[in-house]
This record gives sequence, C-alpha cells and structure tokens, in this order.
Amino acid sequence: MTNTLSHIAIAVDDIDKAKSFFELLTQNKSSETHLIEKQKVNAAFIAIGDTTIELLDPYGQDTPISNFLSKRGGGIHHLCIKTDRFDEMVEKLKSTGIRSLGDSSIGAKGKRVIFFHPKDTFHVLIELEEH
Amino acid sequence: MTNTLSHIAIAVDDIDKAKSFFELLTQNKSSETHLIEKQKVNAAFIAIGDTTIELLDPYGQDTPISNFLSKRGGGIHHLCIKTDRFDEMVEKLKSTGIRSLGDSSIGAKGKRVIFFHPKDTFHVLIELEEH
Repeated sequence: MTNTLSHIAIAVDDIDKAKSFFELLTQNKSSETHLIEKQKVNAAFIAIGDTTIELLDPYGQDTPISNFLSKRGGGIHHLCIKTDRFDEMVEKLKSTGIRSLGDSSIGAKGKRVIFFHPKDTFHVLIELEEH
Repeated sequence: MTNTLSHIAIAVDDIDKAKSFFELLTQNKSSETHLIEKQKVNAAFIAIGDTTIELLDPYGQDTPISNFLSKRGGGIHHLCIKTDRFDEMVEKLKSTGIRSLGDSSIGAKGKRVIFFHPKDTFHVLIELEEH
C-alpha cells in the first residue's frame, strides 16, 4: 500500500492575495483559479515538493469552508491523503474506532473521497482520496 | 532558490496514540519519541512523501504548544518551509509587510529558523528554516 500527501487545504478569504503570498512562500506559480461548484469554492493549486497547497475561497453561505472561515478566520482546513487501497484504508481506520463524516463520495477529481471526524484524528480533519 | 515543505507540525495530547494513528494513516513507521528541551515538547517524526509529520506533545506549562493545545485541543500548529536562501526569503516576506514573531533563532536541527505572524499569513503559522 502506498499513501501520499495529496494536498494541504487552506481556507482563505481573498484568493488573489493568498495566491500571491503562497507563490512567494513556495517560489512556485499558482494555477489559475477554478470554480468548484460542488464545494462552492474558488480554488487554486500551488505545488510544493511532491504535494500541493490547495487554496479554497468560499462563495455562498453555510458551506463547510464558509463556516470554517466564519469561525476561525481561515487557516488549514484539512490534509488529504491519497491511497492506492481506498477500501482497505477505510476499513482499517474504522476498525480502530475512527468515525467517518458520512459515506464516501466522488470528489472534484472524479475519485472516491471520504472525510474522518477530527475529534477522532487528533483535531486534524483528514480526507482520504482514492488514487 | 528552492523552497520545500520541511514538515507539518501537529500538537497532540497523547504522543503514543498519535504515533499509532499517523503510522496507520501514512503506512510509515514513526521515529522514536525525542525530548526537545528548548521547545518543551516530546516529538516524533513520520515521513510522508518528501515531507514529514512532526508530532509535538508538550510538557510543562505556558509554552507555545501547551497554550495551543489548551486553546484548540490540538491539531496542526504550523507548516515549516525550508529554503536555501534564508536571508533573501526573510527580506522578501518582510518587504510585503509580513511581521515575524521575534528574530531568527537556532532551531532543534542547528539551523536558523524564524516564525511569521499568522494574521499576516492567512491564519497559517509559518516557520521558515534555513537549509
């Protein structure tokens, strides 16, 4: 089984300013900003090493990212781990008592994803993504 | 200039349980737990791809990690970016108005490190480390 760090998702309230900052910090160029309808965010991606910083700027109200932004002002929202054995990993995590947040669904990249309850994962919201 | 993601630091209240969880999640073996006197933490390191998850379990009171744990319960404390041009990066960041938290100091690995104010960095506490 190979698990990698797919991305670090950061909720921001001004994606253009955030892109400038993270471009400076990583010394890499950001992607264009993309609208992701399903998650109600504008998103941009910046590579660093073999992982990616994913900037998420919400639109609309009462979405996971807009609620996080209202509560915290922004910051790291979740870590996404990519695995080539999705079902086995879900089973392993659940068997140790870790609760998922709902069932798996199809993510923005067309792959299965599932989130786990941060109270069971040391206060780090974890997304597991199928490779 | 080459900047990489040195580590993702996570504050935890039970390092043995946290090691088990992150070993399961990454499918990698953790280091032994090390005492880092200067930061008043017990620390363990788990590789994922070309970066590292750094688990920090504080001891003693009124330290940055113990205060974060009291306030938040735990979770991601900071991201550390490693750069081969430390002085130039510090200058670039400061010239855009980003405030550092004090001056640079010598970190646990014997290299210079400096932290930046999360209010200026999209609510993500950033450590910059000299390569």
